[in-house]
Amino acid sequence: MDIQSIQFAQRFSGISGSAIREIFKLLAVPGMISFAGGNPAADALPDGQCAELAKELLLDKGKALLQYGATEGYAPLRESLVPYVKDRFSFSCAPDEILPVTGSTQAMDLLCKALIDPGDKIAVESPTFLGNMQCMRLYQAQLLPVESDADGIRVDLLEEVFKKEHPKMLYVIPTFQNPTGRIMGIEARKMTARLAAEYDMLVIEDDPYAALRYSGQVMPLIKTFDTSDNVILLTSYSKTISPGLRVACCCGNAELVRKMVIAKQGSDTHSPNLNQALIAEFLNQERMPEHLDYINSVYSKSMNIMLDAMDKYFPAWAKYDKPEGGLFVWVTLPEGMDATEIYQRSVKEKLVAYVPGAPFYTKPGIGDNTFRMNFSAEPEERIVEGVHRLGDLLKEYRA
Amino acid sequence: MDIQSIQFAQRFSGISGSAIREIFKLLAVPGMISFAGGNPAADALPDGQCAELAKELLLDKGKALLQYGATEGYAPLRESLVPYVKDRFSFSCAPDEILPVTGSTQAMDLLCKALIDPGDKIAVESPTFLGNMQCMRLYQAQLLPVESDADGIRVDLLEEVFKKEHPKMLYVIPTFQNPTGRIMGIEARKMTARLAAEYDMLVIEDDPYAALRYSGQVMPLIKTFDTSDNVILLTSYSKTISPGLRVACCCGNAELVRKMVIAKQGSDTHSPNLNQALIAEFLNQERMPEHLDYINSVYSKSMNIMLDAMDKYFPAWAKYDKPEGGLFVWVTLPEGMDATEIYQRSVKEKLVAYVPGAPFYTKPGIGDNTFRMNFSAEPEERIVEGVHRLGDLLKEYRA
Repeated sequence: MDIQSIQFAQRFSGISGSAIREIFKLLAVPGMISFAGGNPAADALPDGQCAELAKELLLDKGKALLQYGATEGYAPLRESLVPYVKDRFSFSCAPDEILPVTGSTQAMDLLCKALIDPGDKIAVESPTFLGNMQCMRLYQAQLLPVESDADGIRVDLLEEVFKKEHPKMLYVIPTFQNPTGRIMGIEARKMTARLAAEYDMLVIEDDPYAALRYSGQVMPLIKTFDTSDNVILLTSYSKTISPGLRVACCCGNAELVRKMVIAKQGSDTHSPNLNQALIAEFLNQERMPEHLDYINSVYSKSMNIMLDAMDKYFPAWAKYDKPEGGLFVWVTLPEGMDATEIYQRSVKEKLVAYVPGAPFYTKPGIGDNTFRMNFSAEPEERIVEGVHRLGDLLKEYRA
Repeated sequence: MDIQSIQFAQRFSGISGSAIREIFKLLAVPGMISFAGGNPAADALPDGQCAELAKELLLDKGKALLQYGATEGYAPLRESLVPYVKDRFSFSCAPDEILPVTGSTQAMDLLCKALIDPGDKIAVESPTFLGNMQCMRLYQAQLLPVESDADGIRVDLLEEVFKKEHPKMLYVIPTFQNPTGRIMGIEARKMTARLAAEYDMLVIEDDPYAALRYSGQVMPLIKTFDTSDNVILLTSYSKTISPGLRVACCCGNAELVRKMVIAKQGSDTHSPNLNQALIAEFLNQERMPEHLDYINSVYSKSMNIMLDAMDKYFPAWAKYDKPEGGLFVWVTLPEGMDATEIYQRSVKEKLVAYVPGAPFYTKPGIGDNTFRMNFSAEPEERIVEGVHRLGDLLKEYRA
């Protein structure tokens, strides 16, 4: 006998599992060359350093680390983050404006928990990170897509959206955007901060990739132009140190952070102490600069190998930009081509995976001709081989 | 200039920070003897073992542990849990019926996210764990208190509540209940499982304390009488291994677990791998039996010291039972006395803290004459000294 009927909550109507996570299940086939994830390279994960640090931390402070911790975060991490944010991002943040969380997905979840009632509007770049769209949808938010171009979200369209739709927040990834790899210009950043103040709206600035820069000038955060306390920065150690440790951090308005803390009491009481302590040690021992130099040299090389292979093996009608950093190359096929259909053939016939672009858009029927390629997870020879095979497949479509 | 107005979500109306967490802020005074927490003793935290295991795990499997993991949980932990649940709890659970989570608070949060719409009813023991009530309130659930007595929740009242109110679920802590330390009898457990099947209702059986048994017979879980797949078990390693690692586990209906996984994708993508691997190693290396023997001998001694001191120093009109395990002694003062008011004097004048009982009830005005004493966090001599001081204060009230 089975339970007769589980009545799930209304927030699940129209929600299925994350499209990207379903796609990843196809990747378990042996030999698959995957450009689908956003995973750091195995080489980029500091396992030896973490092994030593974890042992030292547990021997030295184990009783405190294994005990209950504060919902507000592990104090030494919060204290390390104040100067780190100041040095790295050039803005000042008080300890009560900082909240360490379990991955920046949790920051998004807590922001929605604190702010979003069913039907509330959130403006998002189109396309944008599908994981966070899933998070917003579970709060029954209405997503308002704002078109983007080669310079990221089109701020010339933003004011009208704010004026007409009064969204509760704007969610934006200004640097090395996911999925496009694009960068918002400095004027667009200033304008976004100005509009946020003018329309008294929150801007969620998600910034997991900015430290992965391989060329070009460092761009200031939107947060550095925020004179009205309207911008919330999400920063993460998933792409720079380790995603498996699940440590990210949210910086913004203290009153909002306080509500997120109350939300977090009900979500998981607190984030694990050991994980936060490992990141704090990494920062305090000044391990980041050398580590970033290393991973950026690795990723920069991988990206260039991928781009060279695409130049060589992709048909000329497959368009892509060369990013200045991040983890992704965004490919646009001619209108009418279906990257999801090609994906099904690619994984089966070529053992090559990517992520079709459609799920990164708020609505079906847009971006069907786009896809996202990740260059950080495969070794050089497999990048070349995979792009070669995929190029051969693409060429079958328009001989 | 500051953001002019943050409009928080409706789920926050009437919610303030967790009462218990606010109370804990008063504990920072040096010299405070605290019976307020539910913290494991420092001695009970296996810091040396975790230091060795963490280093070995990170050296051996660091690349996988630091990489992204599965929302469904770290596979070796899920695999270890199948035989562990079978051996320890005497019921069979398939891997897709098990979900490792970030503390059992997260299991409660995901259950609410999967199941609760605003206004949905949840039946709870009165009194019950206030952290999970806070979690339920953030989903705008309506809490239906069901009275309890020395044998736990009054199952004779349950059927009427189910029939009349049709709650979506019942939340119950049957063994060494928080805050009362009480145990539901075996017939009451069978009846609860039967009623759940009959009224097609979910029972959330929260079981963090059962392994901390110092006397009496082991009681079977409600889950072992569940023939209809209506009971969800929450088990946790917070009280037995470490709360700071944040590893707990939920076992129940596979379809519900699947919805919780989707909810978790939006909440934090996945729980940290290293923490789950540490618990898996602890289980796989058969470290639990010896560790439990040790902590149970420590806690049993502490409990007896507290009870002896209460017998000696508390006035006869302060009533309490001797628990068979867990972490708490529940004290009932004569009607009309106010344990919250006494608490304020106790922390200031006596430097002794406990948790007043009122916040463990669903509504104000009930249980004002009750309080919860924890015996696991203080060394023996401070237990005696603290109970002595508190007894002196109580005696001032009815000389």
